[in-house]
Amino acid sequence: MPSPTINRQWLYTQIPDAVVGPEHYSYSEVELQRSLAVGEVLVEAAYWSVDPYMRINQSRRPTWNAEPHPLGVVQSAAVVGRVLDSRDPELASGDWVEGPLGWQTHAKAHGSTLRRLDPTLAPPSTALGVLGMPGRTAWFGLMEAGRPQPGEVVVVSAAGGAVGSLVVQFAKRAGATVVGIAGGAEKCRWVRESLGADVALDYRAYGDAAALESALREAVGGTDVYFDNTGGMISDAVMPTIRRRARIVVCGAVSQYGGGLDEPESGPRFSHHLLYQRATMQGILARDYLHRMDEMLARVGPWVQRGEIVFEQTISAGFETLPRVLQELFTGSHRGKRLVSA
Amino acid sequence: MPSPTINRQWLYTQIPDAVVGPEHYSYSEVELQRSLAVGEVLVEAAYWSVDPYMRINQSRRPTWNAEPHPLGVVQSAAVVGRVLDSRDPELASGDWVEGPLGWQTHAKAHGSTLRRLDPTLAPPSTALGVLGMPGRTAWFGLMEAGRPQPGEVVVVSAAGGAVGSLVVQFAKRAGATVVGIAGGAEKCRWVRESLGADVALDYRAYGDAAALESALREAVGGTDVYFDNTGGMISDAVMPTIRRRARIVVCGAVSQYGGGLDEPESGPRFSHHLLYQRATMQGILARDYLHRMDEMLARVGPWVQRGEIVFEQTISAGFETLPRVLQELFTGSHRGKRLVSA
Repeated sequence: MPSPTINRQWLYTQIPDAVVGPEHYSYSEVELQRSLAVGEVLVEAAYWSVDPYMRINQSRRPTWNAEPHPLGVVQSAAVVGRVLDSRDPELASGDWVEGPLGWQTHAKAHGSTLRRLDPTLAPPSTALGVLGMPGRTAWFGLMEAGRPQPGEVVVVSAAGGAVGSLVVQFAKRAGATVVGIAGGAEKCRWVRESLGADVALDYRAYGDAAALESALREAVGGTDVYFDNTGGMISDAVMPTIRRRARIVVCGAVSQYGGGLDEPESGPRFSHHLLYQRATMQGILARDYLHRMDEMLARVGPWVQRGEIVFEQTISAGFETLPRVLQELFTGSHRGKRLVSA
Repeated sequence: MPSPTINRQWLYTQIPDAVVGPEHYSYSEVELQRSLAVGEVLVEAAYWSVDPYMRINQSRRPTWNAEPHPLGVVQSAAVVGRVLDSRDPELASGDWVEGPLGWQTHAKAHGSTLRRLDPTLAPPSTALGVLGMPGRTAWFGLMEAGRPQPGEVVVVSAAGGAVGSLVVQFAKRAGATVVGIAGGAEKCRWVRESLGADVALDYRAYGDAAALESALREAVGGTDVYFDNTGGMISDAVMPTIRRRARIVVCGAVSQYGGGLDEPESGPRFSHHLLYQRATMQGILARDYLHRMDEMLARVGPWVQRGEIVFEQTISAGFETLPRVLQELFTGSHRGKRLVSA
């Protein structure tokens, strides 16, 4: 390939008050610095990740980080790419790698921050999805915090999303009865027919939380594990249905990403449900399981290789589309993992 | 003693909409049936328990029980008394026992439902407090759900109450820095000076949750374990201060017992705090640890015997005072465990 001389970047330049979009980014080109120190690697990006958590990092309030994503720098993101040049003896030109390289076409990084990928085992892009952060979130969130038992009912919100679509499948493999909650009849059909949920509920088809709650009760009676990606009206519907010693996994709050992050959501509280049912509600974050990535890969990797896991990817072509694709994550109706390819 | 012929009872006769009080009970006298079947025991009550959980059992909505406390029957309650007559070979006349005998002066029960007490180890009334249900709640709630580590900060609401006053002391013994939150300067002084809390905060001295939150932050920085007996404004103040991997023990919601049980409390939700801090919120109930009572007694019993635990009892004399004492539990300013003596 021709030797690149320009690094293209998306800089995060403005804090969103509501939905994040292209107006909060600015495009930039800088000269590509190719010289490498010992241990460094130059990577050319092939796939950029676009994830809901990015919006949380932009909140003005303290979140999992004390400070929001800094302004005027490359948007942080997980990236899959190929090694262009290497001074790390473990990595060679042409190798596929995954790492936190941000929204830019090229990046230098220490080899130790990169994960080498074997493209014969699975498509490299899966390192941003089922075999990456979303897969780790779904696996450990469900298995360690949710702890589904055979015959229990697992309810998953945003069941068509990158994490939710995997939780549905992992919960089925754990022997649970699975209810996927998603937006739209089409997506619900996919959740049921392709992902294998026993029941899929289209929350948009219900006027309020009480109606959705009734439908959930009618379908499965109650909830043993609630994997919560959304908060909001869906949680209002699910929480009154929790059973004795239920586990609620708080993984995300996508209902709030349109602007509800700076002022916390108000509504009926859940404490009394937890008390009456002796239930447990636990927040989980992918980074806390990073050191156990090998464990997840050993379990989930073979399923992916054997084609037993549906890991739909919605891939948009072109680096220039990145901020728009991030916006669509909150306004569109994609299925599975959203990516941008070079 | 003269052989009693009358059993005096307090019947629960009307569902309260707000604070429960004498108007929800009616006094009754019935002839005492003294004949015993094999295995049965006749008990004369010496102490009746008065507990906040009684108000939850009166909620019109499903709680930990599917149905509220039935109307027209003796108010259920734990009781300490002496055996008058026995056809259980394990129990003899004069023995001290504890059991779920309700608000009545006499009760027949199967011996297997009673716990025999050794009055040389501790005053029998402690079987309704530090060595009974409140003690079990405080011990297992704190140690199993709260899991305090030396040097961590434990915050206890209703720190002057039957459960809270024990949690403060158990947390100190676990090596934690303890903040007790209670109502009134006098009670706070007791929480600090007698119970040994490092800090006591009088929530009534703060105009709103934000002011109480600031005081808490200033005093100890943040919260690792929150033992929540109240919900309401105190939880609003404590939850934003939780630290990474905090444990929140939901033990009660006394702020709601004045009428907020039928319509769940609304307010800023806590899910985002749990997510950002990867914290766990767990409802606990004394009955779930009933089978481990011996374990609690083996740990806490010797401390009580050696006089190392403050277990203040506020004892009102006279069976006739029971409904009024229950009301005062929610309107008064008692310390420790409330009891009524015969």
